[in-house]
Amino acid sequence: QVIAGTIIDVSQYGVTKNDGSDSTYQIRKILEMAKQQGATKIVFPKGKYDFYPDRAMQKNVYISNNDPGVKRIIFPLDGFENLEIDGQGSDFMFHGGVNPFVLEDGKNIKFSHFSVDFKRSFHSEASVLATGDGYLDIHIPEAFPYKINTAGILTFVGLQDSPPGKILIPKLERRIAVDNASDYQFKRLLEFDAKLRETAYMRKDIQTGNGLPAEKLPGDRNVRIFQKDLVATVGNIMTFQAKYRKYPGFVVSDSSDVVLDNITIHHAGGMGLLAQRSHNVTMQNSKVTPSEGRYVSTTADATHFVNCTGKIQLLNNLFENQKDDATNIHGIYVAVDKILDAKTIDVRLQHPQQYGFDFIDAGDTLELVHAPSMNTYSTAKVASSERISEEITRVVFQDKFDSRLQEGDSIAEVRDYAEVLIKGNTIRRNRARGMLLNSRGKTVVEDNYFHAPGSAILFEGDANFWYEQGGVSQAIIRNNVFDNSFYAQWGTGIIAVAAGIDNKYKESSRYNKNILIENNTFKVFDYAPILNLFSVDGLVFKNNVIEKNSAYPARAKYKHLFVVNHSDAVSIEKDNTFVGFEKSKEELTKFSTSL
Amino acid sequence: QVIAGTIIDVSQYGVTKNDGSDSTYQIRKILEMAKQQGATKIVFPKGKYDFYPDRAMQKNVYISNNDPGVKRIIFPLDGFENLEIDGQGSDFMFHGGVNPFVLEDGKNIKFSHFSVDFKRSFHSEASVLATGDGYLDIHIPEAFPYKINTAGILTFVGLQDSPPGKILIPKLERRIAVDNASDYQFKRLLEFDAKLRETAYMRKDIQTGNGLPAEKLPGDRNVRIFQKDLVATVGNIMTFQAKYRKYPGFVVSDSSDVVLDNITIHHAGGMGLLAQRSHNVTMQNSKVTPSEGRYVSTTADATHFVNCTGKIQLLNNLFENQKDDATNIHGIYVAVDKILDAKTIDVRLQHPQQYGFDFIDAGDTLELVHAPSMNTYSTAKVASSERISEEITRVVFQDKFDSRLQEGDSIAEVRDYAEVLIKGNTIRRNRARGMLLNSRGKTVVEDNYFHAPGSAILFEGDANFWYEQGGVSQAIIRNNVFDNSFYAQWGTGIIAVAAGIDNKYKESSRYNKNILIENNTFKVFDYAPILNLFSVDGLVFKNNVIEKNSAYPARAKYKHLFVVNHSDAVSIEKDNTFVGFEKSKEELTKFSTSL
Ligand SMILES: [Ca+2]
Repeated sequence: QVIAGTIIDVSQYGVTKNDGSDSTYQIRKILEMAKQQGATKIVFPKGKYDFYPDRAMQKNVYISNNDPGVKRIIFPLDGFENLEIDGQGSDFMFHGGVNPFVLEDGKNIKFSHFSVDFKRSFHSEASVLATGDGYLDIHIPEAFPYKINTAGILTFVGLQDSPPGKILIPKLERRIAVDNASDYQFKRLLEFDAKLRETAYMRKDIQTGNGLPAEKLPGDRNVRIFQKDLVATVGNIMTFQAKYRKYPGFVVSDSSDVVLDNITIHHAGGMGLLAQRSHNVTMQNSKVTPSEGRYVSTTADATHFVNCTGKIQLLNNLFENQKDDATNIHGIYVAVDKILDAKTIDVRLQHPQQYGFDFIDAGDTLELVHAPSMNTYSTAKVASSERISEEITRVVFQDKFDSRLQEGDSIAEVRDYAEVLIKGNTIRRNRARGMLLNSRGKTVVEDNYFHAPGSAILFEGDANFWYEQGGVSQAIIRNNVFDNSFYAQWGTGIIAVAAGIDNKYKESSRYNKNILIENNTFKVFDYAPILNLFSVDGLVFKNNVIEKNSAYPARAKYKHLFVVNHSDAVSIEKDNTFVGFEKSKEELTKFSTSL
Repeated sequence: QVIAGTIIDVSQYGVTKNDGSDSTYQIRKILEMAKQQGATKIVFPKGKYDFYPDRAMQKNVYISNNDPGVKRIIFPLDGFENLEIDGQGSDFMFHGGVNPFVLEDGKNIKFSHFSVDFKRSFHSEASVLATGDGYLDIHIPEAFPYKINTAGILTFVGLQDSPPGKILIPKLERRIAVDNASDYQFKRLLEFDAKLRETAYMRKDIQTGNGLPAEKLPGDRNVRIFQKDLVATVGNIMTFQAKYRKYPGFVVSDSSDVVLDNITIHHAGGMGLLAQRSHNVTMQNSKVTPSEGRYVSTTADATHFVNCTGKIQLLNNLFENQKDDATNIHGIYVAVDKILDAKTIDVRLQHPQQYGFDFIDAGDTLELVHAPSMNTYSTAKVASSERISEEITRVVFQDKFDSRLQEGDSIAEVRDYAEVLIKGNTIRRNRARGMLLNSRGKTVVEDNYFHAPGSAILFEGDANFWYEQGGVSQAIIRNNVFDNSFYAQWGTGIIAVAAGIDNKYKESSRYNKNILIENNTFKVFDYAPILNLFSVDGLVFKNNVIEKNSAYPARAKYKHLFVVNHSDAVSIEKDNTFVGFEKSKEELTKFSTSL
């Protein structure tokens, strides 16, 4: 029996290592015991541990910006306080469609010293053997099982992967495989440079569906795939983007003081770390990086923070090869669906991956926002709320709301917006952007290394698709190295604004404010924008070094380093240094309104 | 306010008819009120009522032989007693992925006088314009929206179908449509005869995936689809079988004394009526029939009963054009997954569509079954059970179980097996079989008309795929007309056994017992088996009239009306009448062991 405050060594409770056995059920029982008895640490003696879906705890979970549903949770952490899970350098291998860690209503929780991987990744990869008009010849390694059906359509399937000892009935296993195959669906292709291990220069996503016409070619697992816009370079890697985000690595909901320290996330079917409605979350000394042989780590963002408060800290991490941004820190807008009376409205979560995201409680202050301009015109205090469905909530305000409120307007929570510290991280080789900075709390980004194919830093937020609340109020970006970022797609400049403000309102909207960019090094290979801004109020670009190199071919369409539109008080100071450019500093620092 | 025992007229609580508006939320509130106040009847003034997903109550529901998941339930009926929902001839139109009626833990519940339909069916249909080697040219009516993507692959999608007044954001609607499209996936094709409105003579399912290579043809919504085994007759209808069974019409769980009276089910995305673990369920004077313009009604069985007790009655119904059997009445086997000690085992639900089917409670008696022979060798009483996951339950028995028990054996509940009365029904034009009789209670099938493309009556049960417990102990089949049943696939005879008994155990197993078949009329068009039996103990075929006609082309491969193997006490009485045959009665009634 465990005594409060003591340490549980899992090896003393039936968990064995390095033998491939399924430790899921024992972990459930250990967690129940730990909670009951107030243990403060669960220790895994260093080794390899395996976890299968069969005996996982199941629960319907809503995970913002990932796909909701009934999850099979390997570490269901609900209502824990003061607990550390210490892997002591162990490797946790997850099998099938499972959710590794789901923390809800926790306080003071630490995850340390272990790695997370999945035996069968939710995305797939192939090497490019040859190319032609409307087709690619690819070789698909054994790690990514696929089939070509009677109609000649290629899809990916799961591994035959059962815990030792399971009685296998072939007919039934095939039926179960059909169900499980939906976890391995794809929706688009993206080429990676095999040598640089990053997305190939200027390549973009090729939209497909889950399936491509295909033919078997001579040679083991060699296949020709057909679609008129297929393009790639022989020798490179074609990655098949997972359709769903069902299996994020760490989910942190409604919790406070949560730390990931020395964690390696090799893979997750969704985001690496998704924190929502949580207070003080830190990830440090950790890695998101693919396991050997794979080009892709997580199938979506490395980290992502929604409606969080307190402090968000990303310190000394490596974020590489994830299939989306290194981080995105934002709030959520709902739309006004129906005005019922002067105090009562129905609001609607708009993006299906936000369905079930509850944040409107009695006593909350909400901001009322004109959606196309993203201007906040009023606030209102909530008297009560009733959740009607995953997407609809009925809100009764304490007083009559501002009479300007209309159906279609947006609403978000006014809260203790998180302070953000992003320091000492390396971001590289991923798809899309580096950091999406959308917290209204003080945001400091320093001492990082950025090499993203899209914008290194993006100020986002919109109320027409993702419905993400943003708008920085004080952002400091200093002492970072921006190493040939924005060498492909996804953005309009190295540091850019992508807020979804209607063109006709850009002049009247100032969604992002007070941005200081100083003492950074920008390595660039052409005249793509270092800054591409609109609707910004107050930005100082100071004492930076901008070095031109020839790492990638220059793109003719880019001609201006500083593109500024509909903004106030944007200043490029005299103390910036430009090295290796043909043009003069005066010419280089002139604002343009177009590329 | 409603007074106990009184009637609620929905029109007095904000529900409007014939205006296309979404009545979902009002119905939720009315049901809450009805339960609180003990109303006995909810009345819908005759009209058309519409129901959308947006404001439906959501709940994770496990529905045997259908697909589990978080459902949007329009009529969530949980814990009701003594309630009638009287539609007074109304039409209920459901939109999108919703579950019309889910009754749980109810007592004395009646549904009467209304129809159920879906605006967009979960399956799709097309007419055949032309045929060729490895392709079909089809016309897809507007009721079945589809797309052909960049890769040239045809899939089906939902309708743009929102409640009036919803603000539509095009980019977001397209995103939502992508999610919803998964509801309209298909998995195989089946041809229907356009004139006879039944599955075409001798056609079988053509397995595909969700997607076929396709090309647009001249003419509106004309498409060529490719797969090497595509075959059809010009002018006929090709139906695309829905991949999932997520939206059955009526779900009845853990309830007693439930009646469907004068109900028309035009469509459901799954079974029409699925009753599980319920006592006394009747469907009468009702119809499962497609709405105008469609060839298919429900996408799976019309009715289906799992682990039910008391009386199951199907009286004076029409079951037509459903994409599977008219009924299947059975229990569920689980497999022994792990023996933990002499009293404790883990059992596993085997078929994914049974996951979450709980039936093992303290005090229950379970039968222990040798899976390949389906012989019950022992029983054991349950002390306690713990549900570990959707498929795994830990069972502790009161005493040590029979030492013959091994991992891989099957286990089912010994219960008050339902008495079954199937009387006065018409079964026709569906896919697959008529009645699957697998209850061990007295089973009477009389005064029915059968015209199914597969076996009219099948004795099923297996422990190797569906894990359905069966084995009749007393079945009476009398005064029915079997009108040219078994004119296509799905079975081995008009009345047949399909129990999943391993060949080497067929001689020692007698899974079905005491079957009386008398006073029926069999209309047949060739020498396909009227009876095809194995492992039966006791069957009397008496005073039936068998008439030969030429409704369909005769099939050369069938030569014997009575095929009997590994059975005892099977008797074809002298009083049967044979009309229109070339062969003598003696010849016709001789048993054969092969076709
Ligand atoms: Ca029971």
